[in-house]
Amino acid sequence: MAHIGEEMKNKQVIFRDYVRGFPKESDFIITSATIRLKLPQGSNGVLLKTLYLSCDPYMRMLMQSQSATNSYSPGSLIYGFGVAKVLESAHSGFNEGDLVWGILKWEEYSVVEEPGKLIKIQHTDVPLSYYTGILGMPGITAYFGFHDICSPKKGEYVYVSAASGAVGQLVGQLAKLMGCYVVGSAGSKEKIELLKNKFGFDDVFNYKEEPDLNAALKRCFPEGIDIYFENVGGKTLDAVLLNMRPHGRIAVCGMISQYNIDQSEGVHNLMLLVVQRIRMEGFSAPDYFHLNAKFLEAMLPYIREGKISYVEDTVHGLESGPTALIGLFSGRNIGKQVVAISTE
Amino acid sequence: MAHIGEEMKNKQVIFRDYVRGFPKESDFIITSATIRLKLPQGSNGVLLKTLYLSCDPYMRMLMQSQSATNSYSPGSLIYGFGVAKVLESAHSGFNEGDLVWGILKWEEYSVVEEPGKLIKIQHTDVPLSYYTGILGMPGITAYFGFHDICSPKKGEYVYVSAASGAVGQLVGQLAKLMGCYVVGSAGSKEKIELLKNKFGFDDVFNYKEEPDLNAALKRCFPEGIDIYFENVGGKTLDAVLLNMRPHGRIAVCGMISQYNIDQSEGVHNLMLLVVQRIRMEGFSAPDYFHLNAKFLEAMLPYIREGKISYVEDTVHGLESGPTALIGLFSGRNIGKQVVAISTE
Repeated sequence: MAHIGEEMKNKQVIFRDYVRGFPKESDFIITSATIRLKLPQGSNGVLLKTLYLSCDPYMRMLMQSQSATNSYSPGSLIYGFGVAKVLESAHSGFNEGDLVWGILKWEEYSVVEEPGKLIKIQHTDVPLSYYTGILGMPGITAYFGFHDICSPKKGEYVYVSAASGAVGQLVGQLAKLMGCYVVGSAGSKEKIELLKNKFGFDDVFNYKEEPDLNAALKRCFPEGIDIYFENVGGKTLDAVLLNMRPHGRIAVCGMISQYNIDQSEGVHNLMLLVVQRIRMEGFSAPDYFHLNAKFLEAMLPYIREGKISYVEDTVHGLESGPTALIGLFSGRNIGKQVVAISTE
Repeated sequence: MAHIGEEMKNKQVIFRDYVRGFPKESDFIITSATIRLKLPQGSNGVLLKTLYLSCDPYMRMLMQSQSATNSYSPGSLIYGFGVAKVLESAHSGFNEGDLVWGILKWEEYSVVEEPGKLIKIQHTDVPLSYYTGILGMPGITAYFGFHDICSPKKGEYVYVSAASGAVGQLVGQLAKLMGCYVVGSAGSKEKIELLKNKFGFDDVFNYKEEPDLNAALKRCFPEGIDIYFENVGGKTLDAVLLNMRPHGRIAVCGMISQYNIDQSEGVHNLMLLVVQRIRMEGFSAPDYFHLNAKFLEAMLPYIREGKISYVEDTVHGLESGPTALIGLFSGRNIGKQVVAISTE
């Protein structure tokens, strides 16, 4: 138990340098600084104790030197979504003891000088780690990506790639609740079992065992695909385009297959967007954060009534973080990858 | 002047065989059949005299053996949009003397057994050839593609490729009427002059003289692009993606740069759809044909009041058709390519 004013060890994860290809453990440095648990004189921020950190695929883009978004700075701490407890607050929006989620630096204790974007956690009858997943950024991504971008209708044919991931498992279950026919793909036997037996996908396939993705999709969707929830990009997208129905929709959430290669694979079948009159739309969860209350109103009952399950893959301690993070890109994790830092 | 019952020469254009690469004149056979100008016994159709035929890029797709749409049949007549006069009608919707536009076979006289999809021409104070262009399929493409798919707002930055073509010249002018900043690209000095001096584009460039399309777009759009009206695909689309603003829209009308190559160029920058939350949407004019009355209500006044100009490139006689058609793919035509068959 940490007390205000106390001097504490503060483990941190530092970004060594820009990454090419797959990130490796050596791209990160784990150090131990010390921190006095007290907001600096004149601060308007909050002092946080990190409880959970989230490993998300988009973080790979921040490791590029030439990134369309702001990259991590070599020699500085990496950051990502996480859950924390307020130890001290000089900001009118937060009180000691509040639980929050939002962008956090990867360290055990953290001062956030501009905490305005942190979201207060009001519901604690569910696991706190859920605010890195089903009730956090990935949940908002799945909920609005599916309901807003995909414009789903009952009975439509839905395909979800990376379907056991933090977002995919939710999209599949939301689509089932909507009355859609849902097929998911993933890259291991264990994940495939999960899709079928835990999340209730109508059909599944292991993309690593399919020499011909187009044939696999034709087998699973003899009538074609109305909605594709795109998490992987590249060859998968090309195969999907060959199987889309007229007026289909593709919600582009991410393209994890492309993040670790220098030159992304070309997509060749875009002319089918015209032939089939397809809408393909990129989106990003932060555009929906202001609808968090509406989101919770929909999602909390699903959790409480057992209508949606959520599978997490948890490692413990900040020092396990880099391995967990880079595991995303080899598909090591089964379900949402969480790093548990502290439970108090 | 042809009379009902008379036996007439009937020139026709026959599709020789599926095409790979650029279509050549030898892919088409010009023949002369004879036709008795009389509907067959028991017909419920119409007998037409062809006045104008339209050359449109999408026709290249019908020359593929493996096409997502119905291909032309080797040994059979090709078809496309055109304007015709009804010589005889056994269909309750049409009378002798009516003018119509719609899908016609490439021949001088034609029997259409199911004329239900032909659209009657009510306004003849404008050139009849316009119903192959500004008042026909390309006009509907431009009007709804821009207003419906692009969701334009005054002051937005609009880029149109193949900007002097049948559709591009209209999109540019519609965007100017909307109060947008409009840049067009084309492939010759003469076309560029047209864009600037006749159609009023704010800025223009000749893509054949730009070694770096990304740099050309950055020069023309220092603030980025809100709306891209996509007519060409491939490398141009990749360069555009690098320059799109957040929440931009890409209306995918066609990808003419890709129609004559066996393996289409890959598009590599699709991840920017996510980063910039871009909507990219394919569409097709026939989905809007039921809104023809609304379309004419908007477009006819623009023509009559001189607010929109339309440039056509006209060749004469069915025998000139194949050369005109294949000229689309080398950019030979300046403006909408029309084949004038008869003026009476």
